[in-house]
Amino acid sequence: MIGLGLIGGSLLRALAAAGHEVTGYDREAATRTLAGKAHGWRVADSIAAAIARAELAVVATPLSAVGQVLDQLAQFPGIVTDVVSVKQPVRAMAGRHPLRYVGGHPMAGKETAGFAASEADLFTGCAWALCLDEETDLDDWVTVAGLVTALGARVVPTSASKHDDAVAAISHVPHLLAVALASVLRDPLAGSLAAGSFRDGTRVALSPPSLIGAMCGGNTGPVHEALDAVLAQLDAARAALDSAAPIEAVAAWAGPAHEARSRWPHPPGEPRKLGLTRDALLALGEAGGWVSAVAPDGVQAHGG
Amino acid sequence: MIGLGLIGGSLLRALAAAGHEVTGYDREAATRTLAGKAHGWRVADSIAAAIARAELAVVATPLSAVGQVLDQLAQFPGIVTDVVSVKQPVRAMAGRHPLRYVGGHPMAGKETAGFAASEADLFTGCAWALCLDEETDLDDWVTVAGLVTALGARVVPTSASKHDDAVAAISHVPHLLAVALASVLRDPLAGSLAAGSFRDGTRVALSPPSLIGAMCGGNTGPVHEALDAVLAQLDAARAALDSAAPIEAVAAWAGPAHEARSRWPHPPGEPRKLGLTRDALLALGEAGGWVSAVAPDGVQAHGG
Repeated sequence: MIGLGLIGGSLLRALAAAGHEVTGYDREAATRTLAGKAHGWRVADSIAAAIARAELAVVATPLSAVGQVLDQLAQFPGIVTDVVSVKQPVRAMAGRHPLRYVGGHPMAGKETAGFAASEADLFTGCAWALCLDEETDLDDWVTVAGLVTALGARVVPTSASKHDDAVAAISHVPHLLAVALASVLRDPLAGSLAAGSFRDGTRVALSPPSLIGAMCGGNTGPVHEALDAVLAQLDAARAALDSAAPIEAVAAWAGPAHEARSRWPHPPGEPRKLGLTRDALLALGEAGGWVSAVAPDGVQAHGG
Repeated sequence: MIGLGLIGGSLLRALAAAGHEVTGYDREAATRTLAGKAHGWRVADSIAAAIARAELAVVATPLSAVGQVLDQLAQFPGIVTDVVSVKQPVRAMAGRHPLRYVGGHPMAGKETAGFAASEADLFTGCAWALCLDEETDLDDWVTVAGLVTALGARVVPTSASKHDDAVAAISHVPHLLAVALASVLRDPLAGSLAAGSFRDGTRVALSPPSLIGAMCGGNTGPVHEALDAVLAQLDAARAALDSAAPIEAVAAWAGPAHEARSRWPHPPGEPRKLGLTRDALLALGEAGGWVSAVAPDGVQAHGG
């Protein structure tokens, strides 16, 4: 486990709790010391020492450090996966080396950061995007899918490109909206009257600005597009406010998204068996489905 | 208590629990029957019967019904207050009658509605805007402030106009952002990957569209202005995404609002005594402060 922040630290804990032999490494000596005080894993003081004899390397660093880490993994014979919140840039960097790379992104997080905030059950019930691109080896994908479903995560098969478009809309733009909304605190009266809708609408503005910068600035194209789609909706809201009957017009504008949000999240339903083929897995993910378990003869599929 | 939805029903329960003699009324016979099954209050089958012998009438109907209710209260000799989420329109309607009107708005709510969802402790710790406009009688304002602080609410002294501007920013626009964000669910993959930031950013899109229409459509001017301020922030985010160093630029853009949100909500601190003057109370509210208790010689003031 290379990088022991919130996600890397939590994954270190989760894999150790599941009985895997894990070794952690972090660039920061203080983090290595902190992680070394707990039990159930080893902490190495270099990437080379961390991956010696490993079958899987997980890159859990900020995007800005991924290139250097991948350079050091260039000769690693095992599977390499990552947990970075954008996938096309990591895929491009991984493509410069002969790596057995499977891009991943657990949709787990909270507004606190660092190893001290990590917890073994962070991934229970969370969606975990796992990229099945043209160059991805299906067997390696299945190995990683089996590992993370065993931690309680729902694996969503997708491509790096579709992932980046989707998370721009459901994760990156929400951070921009939260920050934009939090800026109204310039008015003290607004601050004293603000309640639940403001609290929840701005919660992720508590994320470190550097993280918001990394997720949005590392995914500019899709974030631009998703932001413009939201802005188009807000333009429609402005038009409704300007109409002759604004109460009815705003209500009518809100109706479809209200209905969609009321049906979300979709219940898992009964699992069905799905063959281990690239096309079937990608079709499942595109239709909104996911994988809850992996067996040699197929996966347990839900939704979609 | 005229109107027994979520807020009216909760206030009926809270006032009864505090030992007040309360009578409820709702336009819907089914709601009257439901409210009549519980104990601690009476339920009347007309507004006239509900306010007979009352010292205070609370209008807790949707904005669309307020005009008709106030017409029926025209000769009521007691204090009239309300809990409607916009204040200038109610103030204007109240001004057509010789009423002892004190406009109020508890910043309490949830995405469920109706008497069945009401609860006696909904107002504990919530901010309660209470309007002290030129025509408001200070003694009547103090009476209502004493009543609601005794329920555990923080009274924020303000004017109808400043209230409407502030709630546009911290309540109405958050609803528009939530609906706009929820519209990304048109993509099934986005729905399966959506997690905490999406869940919280869209929670209030679960509010009934009619309620979102009433709050925004009943406050079009301030909502327009607050929405434009948020859109200007989002334009700045777009510019940061377009810059040569988008990761750093987005992080720098997010910094100030992140800092402000990290300091919110402001802790109550030690209360101080404040005289019962219109100017002192309004200055307190404008500076972000509030009142936690009322005594004959002054109020307990916090913050600001």
